Amino acid sequence: MKKKATLSIVKIGGNIVDNPESLKLFLSDFHRLEGRKLLVHGGGVMASKMASQLGIETKMVQGRRITDRETLKLVTMVYAGWINKNMVALLQQIGCNAIGLSGADANTIPSVRRSPEPVDFGFVGDPDPDKINAAFLSQLIESRITPLFCAITHDSHGSLLNTNADTIAYSVATALSKQYDTSLYYCFEKEGVLKDLNDPRSLIPSMNKAECENYKLQGVIADGMIPKLDNSFSAMEKGVSKVIILHAKNLLKQQGTVLR
Amino acid sequence: MKKKATLSIVKIGGNIVDNPESLKLFLSDFHRLEGRKLLVHGGGVMASKMASQLGIETKMVQGRRITDRETLKLVTMVYAGWINKNMVALLQQIGCNAIGLSGADANTIPSVRRSPEPVDFGFVGDPDPDKINAAFLSQLIESRITPLFCAITHDSHGSLLNTNADTIAYSVATALSKQYDTSLYYCFEKEGVLKDLNDPRSLIPSMNKAECENYKLQGVIADGMIPKLDNSFSAMEKGVSKVIILHAKNLLKQQGTVLR
Repeated sequence: MKKKATLSIVKIGGNIVDNPESLKLFLSDFHRLEGRKLLVHGGGVMASKMASQLGIETKMVQGRRITDRETLKLVTMVYAGWINKNMVALLQQIGCNAIGLSGADANTIPSVRRSPEPVDFGFVGDPDPDKINAAFLSQLIESRITPLFCAITHDSHGSLLNTNADTIAYSVATALSKQYDTSLYYCFEKEGVLKDLNDPRSLIPSMNKAECENYKLQGVIADGMIPKLDNSFSAMEKGVSKVIILHAKNLLKQQGTVLR
Repeated sequence: MKKKATLSIVKIGGNIVDNPESLKLFLSDFHRLEGRKLLVHGGGVMASKMASQLGIETKMVQGRRITDRETLKLVTMVYAGWINKNMVALLQQIGCNAIGLSGADANTIPSVRRSPEPVDFGFVGDPDPDKINAAFLSQLIESRITPLFCAITHDSHGSLLNTNADTIAYSVATALSKQYDTSLYYCFEKEGVLKDLNDPRSLIPSMNKAECENYKLQGVIADGMIPKLDNSFSAMEKGVSKVIILHAKNLLKQQGTVLR
């Protein structure tokens, strides 16, 4: 059997995207990452700042933002507009031939709008992993063009959907793992999965699924880290070779929490 | 010699983009246009509305907007973000596999920032026609993917640039005319070039360059119509087969002012 080409899928969180200096450093590291690659970026706090400037009320239910029509417009402007295109221009500057995409573009990520029951989150959706346009993404990647996804997808019925960036990274990695030896890197502003959030030395260097379940029972792993890890282990079961959760500054060193 | 495939390049103005009903009608007509195609959209008044909501001052010199850093961010959000992605979602809904692009994406339209002398218009640029990435655009078009350009490009030095949508349409048409039998349609909210702006029956059905120069001398053609026509005749000299200036509602009828 022919050996699969390797592909790195990197998710970068909003906190780094918001800071021009750390963003430039990160993009330079991303560019230096060898081989085929794809980047997914989060939204950052810019959308919230812009919302308050425009007088758009932030409605939260169970700690999650409701995306009404005005909020959808706002996040599309900020994520798919300024953040995405600014990052494309910065990548082009350093010689990385990036293309900015939402999941609507070339129908790359058709999504399913979340059920309005029990809570109607509005224009929010989750990618349909079986419908991701892997053929087109692979055509770009093989042309040495680097896809850069923002966290906006569409429902194929004319509406854009606000979508979790971690989930986009996981779904795209899963879809492309059929063709590529795929590694998934979740970059954020912590060293990895920490036993004590305030102590970077408490990093858990590697973890399998059983260990993860134990940590969850002990309350060591909580909140937003739970879906990230659940998605990561699910990605590995579906064909992704490697998942590392790490600080953005450690991307080239690949130092963080390695999932096995 | 092998006959070139035909390609329609359509520019749609901001007034139609701003109205959801006329936008849907137009996109449906655009989708029904046979064969290979590419769409360029203007910005509309949404950017001005948003600017005043955000308290961004509109600075005009010689009747033209100055694009400072804040304005660049704003127009990128509105043009490349909301308008572009919303149009992509609407096209996907009716079965047109569109991909939204700025000129930074895949380095499709490298531009040159305008000289700051005599007037510094800020982050404004003009496409470098020789550097348009025609190979990539043709790769999309041959994959039956329809490029949809907003009026944002980049300078290859890390900065996005606000760019006239008519100029983008003209530059892309010129670049692609080497490979395609290219027609260029400038759609807006008038019947075409009118002798009397208030009388749609005063339509000039066709015009060559000499006639155009005469109309200019007579003052029949003035203001924004001058660069549109100058660009159009220049496009035809550089290989574009046909240019029609017409009302958006007449796109399928191809009824308007035909340049010869």
